[in-house]
Amino acid sequence: MDLVERMLAGDQRALAQLMSHVERHSAEVPEIMRRLAPALGRGYCVGITGPPGVGKSTITDKLTAYARQQGKTVGIIAVDPTSPFSGGAILGDRIRMQQHYLDAGVFIRSMATRGSHGGLPQAAQGIRKLLDAFGKDLIFIETVGVGQTELDIVEAADTTVVLLVPESGDAIQTMKAGIMEIADLFVINKADRDGADRLLRELRMLVHMHPRYDWWDIPVLATQAHKNVGIVELYDTIAQHRQTLGETGQLLIRRRQHRRQELLGLLREHLMGMLVAQLEQHDEWRTLNEQVQEGRIDPYTAVEQILGSKDTLLKISTP
Amino acid sequence: MDLVERMLAGDQRALAQLMSHVERHSAEVPEIMRRLAPALGRGYCVGITGPPGVGKSTITDKLTAYARQQGKTVGIIAVDPTSPFSGGAILGDRIRMQQHYLDAGVFIRSMATRGSHGGLPQAAQGIRKLLDAFGKDLIFIETVGVGQTELDIVEAADTTVVLLVPESGDAIQTMKAGIMEIADLFVINKADRDGADRLLRELRMLVHMHPRYDWWDIPVLATQAHKNVGIVELYDTIAQHRQTLGETGQLLIRRRQHRRQELLGLLREHLMGMLVAQLEQHDEWRTLNEQVQEGRIDPYTAVEQILGSKDTLLKISTP
Repeated sequence: MDLVERMLAGDQRALAQLMSHVERHSAEVPEIMRRLAPALGRGYCVGITGPPGVGKSTITDKLTAYARQQGKTVGIIAVDPTSPFSGGAILGDRIRMQQHYLDAGVFIRSMATRGSHGGLPQAAQGIRKLLDAFGKDLIFIETVGVGQTELDIVEAADTTVVLLVPESGDAIQTMKAGIMEIADLFVINKADRDGADRLLRELRMLVHMHPRYDWWDIPVLATQAHKNVGIVELYDTIAQHRQTLGETGQLLIRRRQHRRQELLGLLREHLMGMLVAQLEQHDEWRTLNEQVQEGRIDPYTAVEQILGSKDTLLKISTP
Repeated sequence: MDLVERMLAGDQRALAQLMSHVERHSAEVPEIMRRLAPALGRGYCVGITGPPGVGKSTITDKLTAYARQQGKTVGIIAVDPTSPFSGGAILGDRIRMQQHYLDAGVFIRSMATRGSHGGLPQAAQGIRKLLDAFGKDLIFIETVGVGQTELDIVEAADTTVVLLVPESGDAIQTMKAGIMEIADLFVINKADRDGADRLLRELRMLVHMHPRYDWWDIPVLATQAHKNVGIVELYDTIAQHRQTLGETGQLLIRRRQHRRQELLGLLREHLMGMLVAQLEQHDEWRTLNEQVQEGRIDPYTAVEQILGSKDTLLKISTP
């Protein structure tokens, strides 16, 4: 029995091995994904994001525990948050989540962002699909809301939860910073701290004054994750968002957009490898490359010579 | 007189307008860059990075003040750090740096990362070049060391300074997190806080035990930037690194690598736009795209059909 069959039959080791294939972009990935396709779409993906230190892992941890009580199985994708700076934090988080390691209903995968030029969002989506095909009911993608690559990942979720703490600054700053664009719901964690009530009030007002959807009022919740306060309400609100997405047809629209993004991302990733390999065989490219490296020709001119003019080095054509 | 000529003659408004061209990737950029080429390479670029709240702007601010005392002109590129979360912090930083706004020897440019899919590192390099051609002696690129895109930017500097605070965790964690790969020198800022001495000692030992270069021992300095403590030593150590890079020939090697990275990045950016535009005209692509969006075909198979097989939708050929 091969890896995909074993994984689909519930073998966790096969699941982990397939994830490694996806992470190192192995040649088998297209075949693996082709075979997963019929098993996809049942799992529900929740993105959890926010600045460093806001309690993302604790929230994910508590939501997971509650989901397990409800009889749901859970997959967690933890995208190494503040790499290269928080190896320690991640380590601590993983240790804290060890309770779930003993639970076969939870599968946790950490992904490092460092050194994964370009392919990280693709790999994260591949791992999400593996967890989906494996049969996980809920898939949490947890990533720090900093950096374009990391935001691309979390935006591919069905529901995106943005966490803040009272110290995150006032609501108007938060809005200005473009945070409205990604949040389906806001959570102010560590809500026992000073300033929580004010931020909560301001955020609610601003969300109300600037509605993003006509079919969904973005909720602003308060939690104290380490004390398990507000977790059930958060869980129920995510469920409510899911139901609304389904009833309004928005879930289909979102997933269509995500698939298109995934296709374009994959295209981008594959193209560069192909092109450079193809170009490397040509003296003209090697000369051009050498001239750019020596600063004798600027890279914009080089790109024009490769792609832009009639006398282009690289020909791209569709039939 | 056109923009480039005016800029090269010292017109700051022309400089700012050219930066806007670069930021919005306007059609004039290749021509602008071609004309800058002869004026490039005199400025020295220092990348300043570290986790949020570590004092990057304060350090940049103090280094700038000291460089001005030494008669050097300075350009600062501040890549919006923890977008979308810290609009407030950036605002505060910029206000704090207003002292320099009145100084014609300093030019500050902030760049937002949000919404700049793909093109941000290219734009940052373009702006660095403009500051270089404008005649700035020192160019600081300040960005949060979080997120792949942001690290790509700072790694393109001649000297990369990694800032930490005593709370950043112990040295071994820092090393594990891959931080060694990017630092030419470490600075522990806010060194009056608890734990600074221990982190300093540990980092020095680890740097000593795991040398990265045989021509440069990575220094670990302590600063209290808000009190101006350690700034001169930091400035001198950067100068020393620069001198060592020059004497060993490493500066040329580095700049060659950076130019190659820039060329590949530009190629990537241009290719995707061209390809999607070309593909959109074909029914086959539209059908494939539709099937992917509906989940009827997986994106890996689609990419294979576009690029991978003999019967490929898109032909790429070199003469």
